[in-house]
Amino acid sequence: MTVSKNAHIVTSYDDNLRLLYALLDRMGALAISQTRDTIALVVQRAPETAERILEHEAEMNELDVRVNEQVIRLLALRQPLADDLRGVVSGLKVASMLERIGDYSANAARRAPAIANLSAFPVRGPVSRMGDLVIGMLDDALRAFRDPDPALAALVRERDEEVDALHASLFRELLTYMMEDPRTITACTHLMFVSKNLERIGDQATNIAEAAHYRATGCILSGERPKGDTSSSLVWPDGDGPGEDDTLS
Amino acid sequence: MTVSKNAHIVTSYDDNLRLLYALLDRMGALAISQTRDTIALVVQRAPETAERILEHEAEMNELDVRVNEQVIRLLALRQPLADDLRGVVSGLKVASMLERIGDYSANAARRAPAIANLSAFPVRGPVSRMGDLVIGMLDDALRAFRDPDPALAALVRERDEEVDALHASLFRELLTYMMEDPRTITACTHLMFVSKNLERIGDQATNIAEAAHYRATGCILSGERPKGDTSSSLVWPDGDGPGEDDTLS
Repeated sequence: MTVSKNAHIVTSYDDNLRLLYALLDRMGALAISQTRDTIALVVQRAPETAERILEHEAEMNELDVRVNEQVIRLLALRQPLADDLRGVVSGLKVASMLERIGDYSANAARRAPAIANLSAFPVRGPVSRMGDLVIGMLDDALRAFRDPDPALAALVRERDEEVDALHASLFRELLTYMMEDPRTITACTHLMFVSKNLERIGDQATNIAEAAHYRATGCILSGERPKGDTSSSLVWPDGDGPGEDDTLS
Repeated sequence: MTVSKNAHIVTSYDDNLRLLYALLDRMGALAISQTRDTIALVVQRAPETAERILEHEAEMNELDVRVNEQVIRLLALRQPLADDLRGVVSGLKVASMLERIGDYSANAARRAPAIANLSAFPVRGPVSRMGDLVIGMLDDALRAFRDPDPALAALVRERDEEVDALHASLFRELLTYMMEDPRTITACTHLMFVSKNLERIGDQATNIAEAAHYRATGCILSGERPKGDTSSSLVWPDGDGPGEDDTLS
């Protein structure tokens, strides 16, 4: 944040607005760092990143509280104009979404020791691809909110389908490993939850993009979001083991 | 909602405030119904409830959009006073939390066919206990927001620990079943995610309670929340099978 030269007017409306966006920028940077660290837990098997994620989670929670106070202050201080009002209200929502990304990363971080037990590690490639996609979405969603850029926001939303599809495919692959070698069940189960956490971070990036679009235009992106995650409806006939997957509608 | 007798003043500030709370009440009732249906998916093996959950999800999303519009209208129409401002801003946040409960229920509903494949069904008891707790928390959190009742809100928060502990124990139990009979792997995996969805609904009830406390007092409930969910750090030594669980800090 560019701090005002006149410290005594730091409580002015414009300064409060700038402080709100500076807090959101910091939360956005933390969310990207936490997501990168979540991917590193799996791809580089870097368990030391787990500690950093949990440290960042505490900061994220504090920042969310500060955003809430700042929003109340702004709304109480002066009735913001149309654009500013949308910015303030969307900012409040974006803060919750970023804080939730912190929660999902922290949940993944707590699974690091369980995952570290896996000797063969077959899912690095897909997790890495999924991670790159999610980071890209998050980065663009935050830029679309900051600039604001409704066209960029609309594009982010379309990319969520690919993340969902990668998660579904990873889920299927992990089920196969568990059936082939029951000794991997615990670790693979935790990996499934890490993959789900990454998929949910993608959902939050999409939500941020929708908030960015609303902030910029006053219009809510309409229509159902494309969905590629079929993992929740994945069934194999009991006792049949992996084979043709029976994806239900 | 009690509709005003004078239809032509329906856009007044007070009417808009009443409409906001009526929308939140409806969302709260839907969230409770969806959570009940999620429990019924497992406990009564009632797959027809899955359809109802998904129908309610669509309504929930529409209501969330209406709450957002209503909040913007209220803030633009007139600068709300201190109490009202807290009510409006908290209401916006509570709507997101309720909408998220809809998402978690819908995720569970999509797993109904996979779960129905399980012939032996050992986890009904724990899921039922967990469900009762979560429903109770949600009901009290919504009442604490409506009334508003900060003491009740603070009590809700304390009960989340038990839900977390039940989820951790269920997670452990399901790992055991999967290791003993690999044919149950797919169904048990989906059950784990349903249990996690219920646990996350408990988290949202806690978040609603925190918003209720803030609405009533202007103070944020401080201090770390008690945590009972150790499932994410549950490790069994690779190849050792279920035994003493090695719960990490």
